[in-house]
Formats: sequence, structure tokens, C-alpha cells
Amino acid sequence: MDRVFNFAAGPSAMPAEALETAAREMLCYGESGMSVMEMSHRSKAYQDIFDGTVALVRELMNVPEDYEVLLLQGGATGQFAAIPMNLMGEGDSADYIDSGNFAHIAMNEAQKYGGVRCVASSREENYRRIPDWTQADFDPNAKYVYITTNNTIFGTRYARLPETGDVPLVADMSSNILSEVYDLRRFGAVYAGAQKNIGPAGVTLVIVRRDLLGRARKSCPQIMNWTIMAEKGSMLNTPPTYAIYMCGLCLKWLKEQGGVAAIEKVNIEKSKLLYDLLDESAFYRPAAEAASRSRMNVTFTTPDKDTDALFVKEAAARGLVNLKGHRLVGGIRASIYNAMPLEGVRALADFMKDFEMEHR
Amino acid sequence: MDRVFNFAAGPSAMPAEALETAAREMLCYGESGMSVMEMSHRSKAYQDIFDGTVALVRELMNVPEDYEVLLLQGGATGQFAAIPMNLMGEGDSADYIDSGNFAHIAMNEAQKYGGVRCVASSREENYRRIPDWTQADFDPNAKYVYITTNNTIFGTRYARLPETGDVPLVADMSSNILSEVYDLRRFGAVYAGAQKNIGPAGVTLVIVRRDLLGRARKSCPQIMNWTIMAEKGSMLNTPPTYAIYMCGLCLKWLKEQGGVAAIEKVNIEKSKLLYDLLDESAFYRPAAEAASRSRMNVTFTTPDKDTDALFVKEAAARGLVNLKGHRLVGGIRASIYNAMPLEGVRALADFMKDFEMEHR
Repeated sequence: MDRVFNFAAGPSAMPAEALETAAREMLCYGESGMSVMEMSHRSKAYQDIFDGTVALVRELMNVPEDYEVLLLQGGATGQFAAIPMNLMGEGDSADYIDSGNFAHIAMNEAQKYGGVRCVASSREENYRRIPDWTQADFDPNAKYVYITTNNTIFGTRYARLPETGDVPLVADMSSNILSEVYDLRRFGAVYAGAQKNIGPAGVTLVIVRRDLLGRARKSCPQIMNWTIMAEKGSMLNTPPTYAIYMCGLCLKWLKEQGGVAAIEKVNIEKSKLLYDLLDESAFYRPAAEAASRSRMNVTFTTPDKDTDALFVKEAAARGLVNLKGHRLVGGIRASIYNAMPLEGVRALADFMKDFEMEHR
Repeated sequence: MDRVFNFAAGPSAMPAEALETAAREMLCYGESGMSVMEMSHRSKAYQDIFDGTVALVRELMNVPEDYEVLLLQGGATGQFAAIPMNLMGEGDSADYIDSGNFAHIAMNEAQKYGGVRCVASSREENYRRIPDWTQADFDPNAKYVYITTNNTIFGTRYARLPETGDVPLVADMSSNILSEVYDLRRFGAVYAGAQKNIGPAGVTLVIVRRDLLGRARKSCPQIMNWTIMAEKGSMLNTPPTYAIYMCGLCLKWLKEQGGVAAIEKVNIEKSKLLYDLLDESAFYRPAAEAASRSRMNVTFTTPDKDTDALFVKEAAARGLVNLKGHRLVGGIRASIYNAMPLEGVRALADFMKDFEMEHR
């Protein structure tokens, strides 16, 4: 069976080179005589793999020295609770921008632990754009301002970041981390589930400025406590060892592509190819507002729901799979993360033109 | 490089057959055209893998119909917090038996969420045996009684279970789950990190009697909330998809070995081989009290620390690796989980005899 072009929103396509290395090393890694899966997380061989993965994160994201890099479990959903428990004391509050379904869930989860102000929301427009805000909207006493840099379901992206002064900006970057250059000094903490642009599901990357540690409330479960995890080098308990190894292989691939600045150019080219096609077409309609367009998740519709479904079906027959939009938006969604080659996006664009010719 | 016999305490040896299947399917699973790592957790192909894994747990452990099987993240350390948050309200208390380091940490973590009574402890004897208890020690109003069925670090195992009447028994089975037949009706909930007898690190199996759901406190993070996870089929958020697939491959292997009752016989034979040798030797000294001996972790010492270190080094040169004891016990520890073949234990026994001859 040939490999398909997989446009899934996450878990999603991974570099074939990383998978080939993993297959080759599955029964025996180097001179260890065992699979990485079988290694004690306390062994030197595994610590080297772990440290190498963290070093690649630091290098590729240009992580400043005074930021900790943590590799945890529990996904973004775990961090929805961890963030307030690590950054807010009893009686404190935080500002949230409600730009999508996951931002909204994060806001709801945070309300279990402290005061939450919704600074701006595009919920009533079904999140088709990043909501507007002005400087005056933010509470200078907030413990943090929370954003979701890319909204997977709706296909939107912050084209500019809020200026939050001394209040730390905290960002869920799950669906666009490593896809474009960010200056981490703009943030107090960023985090991401691995399963879109880092590696397989089961790892959560957290990068936090060191001066924000030491604030976790006592009731924070140990595995969610950034301070304890930083002290223990992310190994308070057994980490998801193999998934972290896979992240390392994927990051190595990204470095070989030239790193984040280089892949950002490819990502701009890939997304432009599709958006130009959508803008020129009277058949397809882009779902997200132009100024808020994501480079990772391109959402659109055909003239009607039946045609949407036919599109997804016929695309799959051409080896272009997982194009069905999320139920909250409908239509079609092409997720084109770092591991989706330009060739795959070209194949999709060609199919889109053919499909339009046939069905308009 | 040949594969070694890996006596690591966890992550630990896995069945070579499972690793071979994983290597073969790494770039393309069945007719999917993609790696399992790349599959959306919402796809039919992945749901089938997930359901198959849960079905194998149910079959192999003979899980009663009124128990939920959850596949979560965060390891046993996560459950140390999840258990009190799911089973105790404010002002409630629970009984703990302190039989080892992890039981002790679990007890400390639970104290953050409610009252904790230590019913029995062998801490002052460095946990060399399972502590004694009598029926009268238990609080009939406790929300649960907590035990650790096998203590990895010290090499001890509960030879009998406490009778707790209407109070649910909750067991950390991380290091002996699936190694012997348990009647799950004796327990309200059991759980285990996967990395010893189930599959790779990064998955936590929780089996809970359904009538214990619905009690989680409001401040329980969603990813730790058994009730929400049961409602969502363990997929409130993205599960550790690939690690769960690997668990399925390992469980399939276990089924092919004849299941838990069959492997229990092998485990008794494997551990007896080593304990008989220890008992007959004047050179080696078993670390755990005879009545409390583990079938999974065999702990012992040679006459002195230098000889312990030499043992570990010379064994490694023969391809018998990761035999160094935990720092809390010292000496030597042979972890012989399900995936360690009888052949590996025989090789260790042969080495032990040779080493004794040479160094006594």
C-alpha cells in the first residue's frame, strides 16, 4: 500500500524519514541491544535521547537561557488546568481571549481554579476570525493573559500578538508551534500538544520563563506542577519515553529542512497556494476571515453540504485523506503542518481545480 | 548488535514479536496508507485499534461488565492525585497501607486532598516485607483502602489481600498487573502505569467499578476525572495513540502465550528458579522477607557493595543488563516481568552460579 497525503488535524502526518529511522531502530537502538521503548528512563542511553530532544527544541525555537523546557503528559487539556494552578493563587484572576473552541474550553477549565475575565471573543461569529482587542481591555492585575495562537478547528491565526506589558502572555501553540518564528521573550509560557508539529500524541511541550516558577498552589497534582517538573528535569516520574524519542527524530528532520525560518517560508507558500485558489474561485468559499487566516489549517466549503461530502470522498480516492471539516464548522479542512510536503498541497490544489470543473 | 536480556524495573523488556510487528507496520498500517502515529484518534481505523486494546484488557483480566476500562496519561504518579480527587469529598478520609516508596508517595499526595490514615507500615524496616494488618485496623467510614500489590523497588508482593468489606479496595498494580490472576471483584479500582507488564511508558490503565464514578470533586482536572473519561471513552482529548497501539500488540502476545493464568505459571517458575538459588547460597542474600517475595522483582545482595557492583558489571558483559538495585535498597534487582523469557532467567541463574564460584 502506498502512503497517502494525510490532511488530518492531529494526530497528523509525520516525516517519512523519522518513521523510517524508528522502524530501523525498533528492535535495537545503537549498541544498546534493546528498543528505545525498553530503556529505563534512568539509563544513560535514554537520558542522552531525552537531552538531545530538549536541545533541539532549544535550538529550533531559540529558547532563551532563562526559560525551562518541560516534556510532560496530559496534552493541552491537561495544561488547561495546569496553567491556572501554576500561575494563579486563590483570589487571583486571569484574562482570556476566546478565539476558538479550545480557548473556550481552557477558559472554562480555568474557572475551576480562579477568576477568569473574557477580554474578547468571536464565539458569536463561530470563531471565523481572531477577535479584536484594545490595550485598555486587559487587567493590569491579571496573573496572565491567555491566547491560542492558531485555532485548528476554525483555521484562524493571530497575525499580531497582544501587548501585555508586565502581565505574562501564555499561549497554546499546539497547532502552529515550530511552523513560524516566534520571539519567545514575548511570552511568559507557551505550550503545545506534540501531535501536530512536534511528534506523536502523548507528549506535551511546556516552555516557561523561570521567574514564573514557584507559584503553584499546594493542591496542584505533582505531575502538573511545573516547578517540581523543572526541578526534576521532567522526570519526577516515568516520562513517555518512546514518544519523546520520536519527537527528537521529527525535530532532527526539521533541523535538516533548515529549521523554523526555512519551514515558515514553505508554510507560507503552501497556504498561499490554497488561499489563492479559494479567492479566485466562485465555487469554493473560505471559512475564515482573510486577516485571520491560518497557515496550518485551511477551512472552506463548496456550494452545499452534499458537494462537501463528495469532495472528501473523491479526494480520498486520489490518496488525499482526512479532509472532512470539524463538525463545528462543517465543509472541508486541509491541515498542512510542517510534515505535509509542498507536493501534497499541490496534489490537493490540482484535485480542487478538477473537482470545481466537474461540479460547478 | 544482538538483543540483550533486559532486567530493567520499568520501562522494561517487551515481547520481540510485538516490536517486530511495530517495525513492519511503522510506515503503513494495513490499508491505511499511514503510520498508526499519524492517524486521527477520531478515525475508524484508530478507534478499531483502541477498542481492540480495551477488549484484550477485558478478556485477559476477566473484567466484570460493571467495571470501566480507561486508558489515560500521567502514570501512577498522576493517579496518586486522581484517586483522592475521584473518590474523596472534602472532609472524607481514606486508609493507606504503606508497603513501599510508591505507596508512601501516594499517601503524601493524597494528603493534599483529604484525610489519610496510615493503617500499617513497614517503612522502619526499609519495606523488606508487606506490613501486617488486622481487620480492626480499617476505618469502616474510609472512602477507600489503598494498597500497592507489588513493590518494585523492594521486591515484595501481597500474598493475601485485605478484606475491606463495603469499603472499596484500590490497588496500584503497576508492577504486577497481568502477571497473575486477580479477581477484580475484590477491588473498587485498580490501575497501572503501562511500562512494566502492559506496553510502553505513557499509558495508564485504570479499571474502576462503575458505581464509584460520579464522585469526583469539582476541582479535579478534567484529564484526571474518571467519570468524564468514562463518558468520553477515554477520549475527552487526544489519547497517547501509538503507545495504546503498542499495548494492544503486547496484550495480543500475552493472549498467544495462553493468557494470564498461563503466564502466572511461568512467572512462578522464573521467580522460584532465582529464589531457590538465593536460599541455597551462602554467598547471596535475598533482600525481601520470604513470605512477602515478589515474582516480578527479585532483590538480593552479595557479601559487600564492591562485589555487588562487580556482579552488575560482569553480568552486563554477558548480555544480562540493568541488574543494579534501586538506591533505596542497594545490591541487585532482577526484574522479570512477563516479557522476560524463562531462557533469560536461566541465563541469569547460570551467571549467578559462576559468579559465586569465582568470588565466594
